[in-house]
Amino acid sequence: MAEVSNKEVTNREDNYSQWYNNLVVKADLAELSAVRGCMVIKPYGYAIWEKMQRQLDSMFKETGHVNAYFPLFIPKSFLSREAEHVEGFAKECAVVTHHRLKVAPDGKGVVVDPDAKLEEELIVRPTSETIIWNTYKNWIKSWRDLPILCNQWANVVRWEMRTRLFLRTAEFLWQEGHTAHATREEAVAEAQKMVDVYARFAREFMAMPVVIGHKSETERFAGALDTYSIEAMMQDGKALQAGTSHFLGQNFAKAFDVQFANKEGKLEYVWATSWGVSTRLMGALIMCHSDNNGLVLPPALAPIQVVMVPIYKQDEEREAILARMEELKKGFEAKGLSVKIDDRDNLRPGFKFAEWELKGVPVRVVIGPRDLESGHVELARRDTSTKENIAQEGLADHVAALMDEIQKNLYAKALKFRDENIRKVDTWEEFKVEIEKGGFLLCHWDGTPETEEKIKEETKATIRCIPIDSCVCEEEGVCVYSGKPSHQRVVFARAY
Amino acid sequence: MAEVSNKEVTNREDNYSQWYNNLVVKADLAELSAVRGCMVIKPYGYAIWEKMQRQLDSMFKETGHVNAYFPLFIPKSFLSREAEHVEGFAKECAVVTHHRLKVAPDGKGVVVDPDAKLEEELIVRPTSETIIWNTYKNWIKSWRDLPILCNQWANVVRWEMRTRLFLRTAEFLWQEGHTAHATREEAVAEAQKMVDVYARFAREFMAMPVVIGHKSETERFAGALDTYSIEAMMQDGKALQAGTSHFLGQNFAKAFDVQFANKEGKLEYVWATSWGVSTRLMGALIMCHSDNNGLVLPPALAPIQVVMVPIYKQDEEREAILARMEELKKGFEAKGLSVKIDDRDNLRPGFKFAEWELKGVPVRVVIGPRDLESGHVELARRDTSTKENIAQEGLADHVAALMDEIQKNLYAKALKFRDENIRKVDTWEEFKVEIEKGGFLLCHWDGTPETEEKIKEETKATIRCIPIDSCVCEEEGVCVYSGKPSHQRVVFARAY
Repeated sequence: MAEVSNKEVTNREDNYSQWYNNLVVKADLAELSAVRGCMVIKPYGYAIWEKMQRQLDSMFKETGHVNAYFPLFIPKSFLSREAEHVEGFAKECAVVTHHRLKVAPDGKGVVVDPDAKLEEELIVRPTSETIIWNTYKNWIKSWRDLPILCNQWANVVRWEMRTRLFLRTAEFLWQEGHTAHATREEAVAEAQKMVDVYARFAREFMAMPVVIGHKSETERFAGALDTYSIEAMMQDGKALQAGTSHFLGQNFAKAFDVQFANKEGKLEYVWATSWGVSTRLMGALIMCHSDNNGLVLPPALAPIQVVMVPIYKQDEEREAILARMEELKKGFEAKGLSVKIDDRDNLRPGFKFAEWELKGVPVRVVIGPRDLESGHVELARRDTSTKENIAQEGLADHVAALMDEIQKNLYAKALKFRDENIRKVDTWEEFKVEIEKGGFLLCHWDGTPETEEKIKEETKATIRCIPIDSCVCEEEGVCVYSGKPSHQRVVFARAY
Repeated sequence: MAEVSNKEVTNREDNYSQWYNNLVVKADLAELSAVRGCMVIKPYGYAIWEKMQRQLDSMFKETGHVNAYFPLFIPKSFLSREAEHVEGFAKECAVVTHHRLKVAPDGKGVVVDPDAKLEEELIVRPTSETIIWNTYKNWIKSWRDLPILCNQWANVVRWEMRTRLFLRTAEFLWQEGHTAHATREEAVAEAQKMVDVYARFAREFMAMPVVIGHKSETERFAGALDTYSIEAMMQDGKALQAGTSHFLGQNFAKAFDVQFANKEGKLEYVWATSWGVSTRLMGALIMCHSDNNGLVLPPALAPIQVVMVPIYKQDEEREAILARMEELKKGFEAKGLSVKIDDRDNLRPGFKFAEWELKGVPVRVVIGPRDLESGHVELARRDTSTKENIAQEGLADHVAALMDEIQKNLYAKALKFRDENIRKVDTWEEFKVEIEKGGFLLCHWDGTPETEEKIKEETKATIRCIPIDSCVCEEEGVCVYSGKPSHQRVVFARAY
């Protein structure tokens, strides 16, 4: 790979958006591809995504879900079976119309073979409700076949016009859970359970605080009766929707005629949920913790948790230090830590320090000839930029404990920032001033899409969610815009 | 799910092909979808694929590879950069031509929006050499950037006209490794290393013997200088190509202009390999071991290794037996075994036995009231259909050891079958007779595509490989068809 240096990363304060793009590319996470709006996820970025996947997958399995796989393509007619769904997805989808190329008439290159036109066009899935409910139709006969609790890890395509690495790409990777239930109550409980799983994942593994809530009708998933989401605050004060869980009612069951015989033998339509998180989480992770020196990764998701950099002049020193490092590495690995010894001999230590800072490795261990003699190492933390000299004896225990501390510190730091940037706002004048400062505004809202739309038009702020995981918001008041009565504050913010 | 019974599985001897299709569907592995040629991989089938993935992924990582992700779409022009490659893939690919639908003029449903035509059509990847080498171009400047050892887990699409679940589907799941090297030797060694990894996986985890060899020029991957494959023998004597590894020379580096500065600062083209296995392995696994009662799964890949079925009349008995089973389950799980207690109360034990046989669970443990009293269980092996009465004490150790035994037994059985069905054939008359009996024919071949083609025309047999992992084939002789001189026997067979 090309040599990197965090000196090339734009300052966060100068241009947040450019800082982000810079960081994604310089830290070797992802890059644009030759295909408009599609990204290449590079090995270092993919390694983080893999850790997210493994963790989420085990949380899904613990909550009783199984994985399956459904087709990439959706017959065009399926999309229009659910009225809101087609509205939401038809405008931005990749359409397969032919199944063959042939040599161009001039003999140069290939052209689409007009004789290979499909009878019905296929849509590359933007989400899989339709093809899955068409499948569930054959799986469900009686109440004994319920619930069905399937998840799939897959790629999806939404033809976005303005794309940004990880945050909004034409193709992205995600998981989508699709469950089928005998009762409304069970489906609602499932949708809630899964948004809670997402919140726990965000908090415990991404070290990212989130607000759990309902989406307003306007912001709901196309085809859902209710959408839950987790909303995180980025360091520029903007909101990022990090995961959603939908209660779909009987909409898809009715669209695809999926009924089951209940215990009394009567036919009823099945109740549904769907829920998903995507590679967008990578964007959230980056923007939640990173700084002007590069990525800051929580230990729970860092592909490399400890990097070791030797300092030496002579080859002899190098050998002795690397040998010692190999021993220490074994100790780290016995504690379940992932370790890299950076033994490249064509780069200066300072360059290596900068590179691993850029890549967000939580802990750096440096050993020079004098450390070797004294039995010490220099240990640097990425999250606090602090260094300490510490004995090699007991180092693995110390570093293992440090990982927990760093994980907690990152969460505490992000939580502090988030809480400092949540403000109650009660007047429209105040709203217009405060929204410019960024952050989440807790405001009363009259519950109408019209007010929501006007606020969006005037300030670009949207309702991120109607919070459910904290009771501070339930109180009587009047809408910040219309002055009409309201029973609960909601979260307004500008969003990614 | 609908109730299943292995009585409904067609006999293998009556109709092998129907037996296979039946088994895939009845054992809940996969089914056809509403999209022509695309399958739904059901949870039980996917669980087996997941175990394959986890194991292969760790073998790839142990051999120094990392995962990454490249776009689903390939610009049409990329495909034609490598002449043989386009020849191989252009005739069967899904072509995206538009990026939007709109409401139909009659207001019913949606139609493709003619205003949303893409400037250049996109091909849904049939394999990713082109898009990846277009990316590698930017990653590779000097010898220090090499080797690149990337793998991706992905879906691919090849518009096959005749499809069969797992064996040949329009969309399938696979992994594709794409590596870049400074020298020919290193690339050749990589291609060999990976076919060896596949062979080890097939033998040790799938319990499936394979022959490793080179493909003939005719059967080579489109764009490769040399293709290695592993070839397995199915129970009907037909061959199944279970994995391939390609030495691509500098073909793709030249097509995408990927050069590196060597240690002397001179520019050279990069050397490439690619290698892949797919959900086709599921078909191989099924056809290698299963019987008229259903699937037979090797313990190493069985999602459920032990199933426990209670036999009772009264509720009291049921409770006591299930309580005892829960205890035993903990003991099994402590040994790393995956266990399911089938406590469904609406099905007879005999029905459950049949269902778990159909699903190929390696070991069944049955406890009835008398077993509870005597401290015994009835233990049944799927692979041998044998039963024994055995003490509950020490059961976990016994079953853990049994897993190894079953795994070895399945391999030994498959190897015996394979070896009994490999025959040396030296005359054309004999060839025509023997090929009808199935199996692998070891024959001398004059090395020409013309002879290969004629043999295929007359007998439907193809050269599966020119074996490299056994020396029995290297000997002087004359071509079974043309009588011309030959230095090595090759494997002829009819194939999936």
